[in-house]
Amino acid sequence: MSKLQKALLPWIADLEPYAWEESSEDLKRRYGLQRVIRFDANTMPTVPACYDRFLDLLRQDRQANEYKDFSYVELQALVAGYTAIEPEKVVVCASGDEGLDIIAKAFLLEGDRVVVSKPTYSMFSIQSGINGGKAVNVPLLPETFSLDAEGLIAASRDAKLLFICNPNNPTGTVNPRETIEYVIREADCMVVVDEAYFEFNDRESVQDLIATYDNLIVLRTFSKFAAIAGARVGYLLTNPYLASKLNAIRLPMGISYFSMEIAKMVLAEDMVWVEQNLQMILVERSRMQAAYTDLDLKFWPSRANFILVRFGERASVIAAALKQRGLVVRDYSQKAETAGCLRIGIRSPEENTILLEAVRAMLDQSTGFIS
Amino acid sequence: MSKLQKALLPWIADLEPYAWEESSEDLKRRYGLQRVIRFDANTMPTVPACYDRFLDLLRQDRQANEYKDFSYVELQALVAGYTAIEPEKVVVCASGDEGLDIIAKAFLLEGDRVVVSKPTYSMFSIQSGINGGKAVNVPLLPETFSLDAEGLIAASRDAKLLFICNPNNPTGTVNPRETIEYVIREADCMVVVDEAYFEFNDRESVQDLIATYDNLIVLRTFSKFAAIAGARVGYLLTNPYLASKLNAIRLPMGISYFSMEIAKMVLAEDMVWVEQNLQMILVERSRMQAAYTDLDLKFWPSRANFILVRFGERASVIAAALKQRGLVVRDYSQKAETAGCLRIGIRSPEENTILLEAVRAMLDQSTGFIS
Repeated sequence: MSKLQKALLPWIADLEPYAWEESSEDLKRRYGLQRVIRFDANTMPTVPACYDRFLDLLRQDRQANEYKDFSYVELQALVAGYTAIEPEKVVVCASGDEGLDIIAKAFLLEGDRVVVSKPTYSMFSIQSGINGGKAVNVPLLPETFSLDAEGLIAASRDAKLLFICNPNNPTGTVNPRETIEYVIREADCMVVVDEAYFEFNDRESVQDLIATYDNLIVLRTFSKFAAIAGARVGYLLTNPYLASKLNAIRLPMGISYFSMEIAKMVLAEDMVWVEQNLQMILVERSRMQAAYTDLDLKFWPSRANFILVRFGERASVIAAALKQRGLVVRDYSQKAETAGCLRIGIRSPEENTILLEAVRAMLDQSTGFIS
Repeated sequence: MSKLQKALLPWIADLEPYAWEESSEDLKRRYGLQRVIRFDANTMPTVPACYDRFLDLLRQDRQANEYKDFSYVELQALVAGYTAIEPEKVVVCASGDEGLDIIAKAFLLEGDRVVVSKPTYSMFSIQSGINGGKAVNVPLLPETFSLDAEGLIAASRDAKLLFICNPNNPTGTVNPRETIEYVIREADCMVVVDEAYFEFNDRESVQDLIATYDNLIVLRTFSKFAAIAGARVGYLLTNPYLASKLNAIRLPMGISYFSMEIAKMVLAEDMVWVEQNLQMILVERSRMQAAYTDLDLKFWPSRANFILVRFGERASVIAAALKQRGLVVRDYSQKAETAGCLRIGIRSPEENTILLEAVRAMLDQSTGFIS
């Protein structure tokens, strides 16, 4: 056996990486497209209003050659102010995904169990798996996508981590605070509540429960509300003791100089724009849901910036046809728990209308495949 | 026992994070300084020449709200061209430190041994430790800082990973290629050769040995030669099979949109500047070494962009006094293997002269503490 084969961990040899739809550049080349619109990644339609001021700052500050701010102290304080929590409960990290990685490193040994409720964000299982964990699925209840609280609590007995996504990706559904608190209280392990989409859910949060339950970690991201998915900035909220440990695990300077500056600027200067932009998304969410109703398409009322829509047997054909037109949606139709469904992001009024017209035209051509 | 105490891994509870000197902003506040120059972090004195063109690109491209390029394919191709290797042997990552993290994840179980040769880059031990590894030190030989090849090979029998830093940080010294190849060939584990500073060592590399030894991984970074430490971009070189696995372990989009664009631009457009800038550093390295000789200070001839200089018993006092003037050096004087030594980065002619004048003045005041 070679030295490499001897040393490589078996689950790394078998790893299935996180799968994305193709990049826009690839699609432009493949289909000869001028414009590609991403309805697949739950991103915002534009950069934040401060973007040009941010570039002006970079032009003046010119510190990309240095390790400018490895303590993250300023951003930590701004996050604390934004979400009204003590700074010592905040762990700033280089994306929510780094947050998941930090959590896995803090708690997982080889073979440790991690409880997830599918359909949900696949990175819970993937990032835990990379760190040696083994995902155990306690499925969401069919059709309602409600949490199986008793099933989760039972599974927690043999587990280290339990993940709840609220609002849930890819369903857009939420669970009552009482259910989530019940799971946190009764679970015999750490509970991570991913609130990446909480800004689209009236900022309902369980962050106040951190004071009561030392097994609670809340995860959030700048990718959605702050419209800087490309900057890779997120944060965790937990008790100060655990926060100090998680801060010690993160890469010493995982957040790039550029990303740090734009994240700070959005929170310090751009909150009016953030609120206006959120409002725009909420108005568009209502409009799109009404449109899907008109089209007799089943969907799940969404508390996030995307909608899971059931197109039935032809879902993949529709997704492929949309992609050829430069409209990329996320195809979940081949998974049992979301059979026939596509996840479609909410973007600008103009972009949403383009998508809707394309969907309508396809359904008119072939009414047979409405579910 | 609380749920948190039950779940938290013991080595995380005891973790000592990577330690930096204070940030420039903190120092400005503390000492009322106008200017702080970082001789402690081995960074370049300026951003690359393409910096303003990079900002122009950002102003036009405006895709910070999206996940633009999660495949890293373009940067991977540019890196392959830069270092003349097949693209499938390149793993682009979000800093060399993410590279170390990826390696640890691929190979380390709880308690697995990792061989390091102190004094060396402390992140080898820290990032391995976060991932459950246990560092075993096979010290560099005293005074020469040569590798103890036989000691390393013996230690490799019970180890998963072995780290060689060449040129070595913080000593600036190199080991002969023959020694490194001997260790790679004879070691009974994976060998990581950190070549973060190889551009300052005539680009001498063991990358060609990847074709021969499947246990070899080479690590490099954009932080030094490309003058974009703040962008957090690095890469690993290894055999295509392992490279594909390491690519699957990295965060799906660990490199920020901004960082990706500037890293690509430096390689695509700025290589003339890179070479000129490297030449400047090499000329300054000679000048600074001559100056330390004149000052009767012991130093180790450096093949990197920093010099380890022995100031003797008063090293910490000098480092503190320099810091008060806004000149930050890295104080290694309290560690046994680098007793009395400071690591001082090579920067621009003007900055180096400022440092030299300050050092000279301090030594004149108190000749007693020259070693």
